[in-house]
Amino acid sequence: MKIIDLPLADTIAYAAKRSAVAASDPAVEASVAAILTAVRTEGDAAIRRYEKQFDNADLTDLRVPQSAIDDAYANAPQDLIAALELAKRNIISYHQKEKATGFVDTEQPGVMRGERITPLAAVGVYVPGGTAAYPSSILMNVLPAKIAGVARIALVTPPQADGLNQSVLTAAKIAGVTEVYQVGGAQAIAALAYGTESIPRVDKITGPGNIFVATAKKQVFGTVSIDMIAGPSEIGVIANAAADPENVAADLLSQAEHDKRSRPMLVTPDRDFATAVSAAIDRQLTTLPREEIARASVENEGFIALVPDLPAAFAVMNAIAPEHLEVQLPDAAQYLSLIQNAGSVFLGFAASEPVGDYVAGPNHILPTGGTSRFFSALGVTDFMKRTQFITYSKAALAREESAITTLARTEGLEAHARAVESRFRNDQ
Amino acid sequence: MKIIDLPLADTIAYAAKRSAVAASDPAVEASVAAILTAVRTEGDAAIRRYEKQFDNADLTDLRVPQSAIDDAYANAPQDLIAALELAKRNIISYHQKEKATGFVDTEQPGVMRGERITPLAAVGVYVPGGTAAYPSSILMNVLPAKIAGVARIALVTPPQADGLNQSVLTAAKIAGVTEVYQVGGAQAIAALAYGTESIPRVDKITGPGNIFVATAKKQVFGTVSIDMIAGPSEIGVIANAAADPENVAADLLSQAEHDKRSRPMLVTPDRDFATAVSAAIDRQLTTLPREEIARASVENEGFIALVPDLPAAFAVMNAIAPEHLEVQLPDAAQYLSLIQNAGSVFLGFAASEPVGDYVAGPNHILPTGGTSRFFSALGVTDFMKRTQFITYSKAALAREESAITTLARTEGLEAHARAVESRFRNDQ
Repeated sequence: MKIIDLPLADTIAYAAKRSAVAASDPAVEASVAAILTAVRTEGDAAIRRYEKQFDNADLTDLRVPQSAIDDAYANAPQDLIAALELAKRNIISYHQKEKATGFVDTEQPGVMRGERITPLAAVGVYVPGGTAAYPSSILMNVLPAKIAGVARIALVTPPQADGLNQSVLTAAKIAGVTEVYQVGGAQAIAALAYGTESIPRVDKITGPGNIFVATAKKQVFGTVSIDMIAGPSEIGVIANAAADPENVAADLLSQAEHDKRSRPMLVTPDRDFATAVSAAIDRQLTTLPREEIARASVENEGFIALVPDLPAAFAVMNAIAPEHLEVQLPDAAQYLSLIQNAGSVFLGFAASEPVGDYVAGPNHILPTGGTSRFFSALGVTDFMKRTQFITYSKAALAREESAITTLARTEGLEAHARAVESRFRNDQ
Repeated sequence: MKIIDLPLADTIAYAAKRSAVAASDPAVEASVAAILTAVRTEGDAAIRRYEKQFDNADLTDLRVPQSAIDDAYANAPQDLIAALELAKRNIISYHQKEKATGFVDTEQPGVMRGERITPLAAVGVYVPGGTAAYPSSILMNVLPAKIAGVARIALVTPPQADGLNQSVLTAAKIAGVTEVYQVGGAQAIAALAYGTESIPRVDKITGPGNIFVATAKKQVFGTVSIDMIAGPSEIGVIANAAADPENVAADLLSQAEHDKRSRPMLVTPDRDFATAVSAAIDRQLTTLPREEIARASVENEGFIALVPDLPAAFAVMNAIAPEHLEVQLPDAAQYLSLIQNAGSVFLGFAASEPVGDYVAGPNHILPTGGTSRFFSALGVTDFMKRTQFITYSKAALAREESAITTLARTEGLEAHARAVESRFRNDQ
C-alpha cells in the first residue's frame, strides 16, 4: 500500500480530498428519474417490466411467500442461527439504550409544552442481491426499527436466477420480518416511496445498494425519508509500533475485500511500522478468496500516511471522517476525546473492525465518503419522529400577546397578530 | 372556503391527495445543477456573477460587516428587542430539554460499548429576502444549533436593493451570530455546501427558501446534511361547535396570508359551525393587508371537511399530516393520543397557532407537504451526531470469535474472519 510522507497540511489535504463524496452521474440520474416516473404512474406493471429487463426475472407474485421464509429458516445451519441469535441479542441490548422518550415542561403558569416521540408507521429496507446480500445487515436495519415500534417493515431484494439467498431469508425470519418482496434496483425504491398495487408505500427507506439504488434514494428524499447515501466501505486505522502489523494489515483487508472502491487507510507516526504493515498486506493478499477486489482497493484507494505524532494522526483522520476508525494504540480509550468525525470507533488491540460488523451490537450501517462529519450510524432515532405540542391558558396567552403582535407586525403578518387578538375581542 | 361533504373514505383520499409533495420541476432542477457546478468550480466569481444576474447586486465583500449588525441592533425599536428576547428565552428553555447525552454500556465482561453525542462543527442558515425575511426564523434556526454546541454558524441572505432587513440583522445579533453573508438563492446553498474563497463550507444547511433554494438543498444533500425540503405553510384545525368561529377563521387566515399556495384546512363534525367559519373567513379577509395572498390560499388550497364524528376528524388529519394542527375542542389534551402525524400540535381554545410561530418556544421550522409522517420539527438533535464506540478485551473477543467467523464466511467475507482469527494466531 502506498506510503505518503508529506508535510502535515498536505497530508490532511490529500486525505480529505480522497474521502470526498463523488459527484453524481447525470446518465444514472436521468435513467433513475425515468424509472421512478414509470413506477409512480404505472405501478406493478412497470415493476415487472424492469425486473424482466434488469434481472431477467418473470415475476407473477412480487411478494415472497411466508413458506419460503419459514423453509429457509428450517433448513439453515445451526451455527448460523446461533450466530445470528447472538448478534440479535447484542444489537437489541445496545439499541434499546438509544430510545428517547420525549418530555413535558410546565415551567410557566398556564403553559404546557412538550415533545412526544413516536415510531414511524412503515419502513422499507433494501437488501442488495448477489454477493452483497448480507444477513447481518438485515438485523442491523430491522432490529432498531422494531425497537422503535415500527408496525410495518417491508424488505425488498432483487430476484436471483438461482433463487433468493437463503441466509437473507433466515435473517429476515430471526429479525421478525414477514413482508418480503423480490424486487430490486431503482424500481424497488420507487415502489416503497410511491406505493403500487402490491407494495404499499412506506415512510422511510433504509439500507445500502448500488449506484442506481443510492441515486433513487436521493431522488425520492422528501417524498419519503431515507437513512443516508451509502458509498464504498472505509476503514481508518491509527496505530504505532505497539500494534501488531499482521493484525492491522488483516483489519485493513477486511474492508478492502468489500469493493474495489473501498478505502483502507493507515495513519501512523512510525515509518518502520508502516513498512511492516505494507509488507503484511502484500503477504496476506495472496491467500484471500477475494484477492482481486481487495488488491484493487489497496492499490488504487488505500494509503498509509506518515505523521509527526499521534495528535497529527487524529487531525488527519478527522479530515477523512472515516466510516470505521480503529485506534490500535495502548490505553486507546484516552483518545476518544480527540475524535471529531467517525461513524464507529474501535478502541484497542482486540477491537478488530469485523466484531462491529457482526456481533458487538452497535450498528454497522454507517456514514461513508466523509459524511460522518454530519451523519450518524443508523439507530433507533432514525425510525422515530418528534411531535411538538403546546397548550396555553387564556391568561398565559394574554401575558405574551404584545410580544406576539410586535413580532407579527414587524414581519408584516397582520393576520398572525389578529389571530391572537381575536381571543380577547370575543367572549370565549 | 369550500365545504367538502363526502363519505369518510373519500374525504380521507381527497385530503391526503391535497397534501402530497409536489413533483420536482425538471427546468428548475437543471438550472440549479448548473449553478451548483459553477460555484463548485469557480467559487466567489460565480457567486458574484449570479448575484448580479438574479439580484442585480454588485458585490465586493460577500460578508456583512459586524458594524452593520451592531448598528441594526442599536437602532432597533425597544419593543422588538424585548419581544425577540422573550422568544429567545422560551426557545432556549424548551430546546435545552431536547439535548441528548449518549450512553455507555458495560453489561458484558471485557466489553465497553457506547454512543457519544457531539455537535456538528459548522452550520449554515438560509434566511429568505423580501417579505419572507423573518427575524423569528433566525432565532428558531440558530438557537438550537447554539444549544447543541455548534461552534460556527453562518447565515446567508439575498442582498436587497434597499439594504439588508434591519430586523433580520437585529435577530442575528440577539441570536449571537457574527458570520453573515449577503448571498442568496441556489448560489448561497452551493457556497455553504462546497465552500468558496470567502465562505467556508459547512456540515449542514437549514432554513426555508424558494423553489431554487429548496431544489439546491435537495441536490447537495449527501455533500452536506440538510434539515428538510420546506413547502408552503399548512394549518389544520379540528373543531366543533364549542369553538369560536371567529377565532378559528382568524387562525386559518394566519397561515393563509403566508403564501398563495398555503393550505388552511378545517375538519369538523358540525355543519353549522363549518358555515359560520366560512362566513367569518369571508368577513375577516376583506380587511387583511395581505388579502390577495390569503384569498388565493383560501379559495384554491383551503377546504372545510365535514366528518361524522371526532375520531373521523383525526383520521382525516392523520392522512393530511399537517405542519400545524390545532385542536379547538374542550379538554383538548385528551386527543393527543389520536394524533399520528403533525409537526406541531396546538391544544385548546387559547393555543392560537401564531403563539407557536413566535414565543412559545417549540420550533416553528416544521415538516410540510405531508412529511410529518416521517420528518420532525427542527431541533437540537439536528445539530448533533452520534459516534459509536466499542472496546473489547481479548477474552471477550475469544468468546464471540466463532459467531463472527461463521457470519463472515456465510457472507463470503473471508478477510473479515481472518482479521479476528489473526488476534489468536499472533502473540500480542
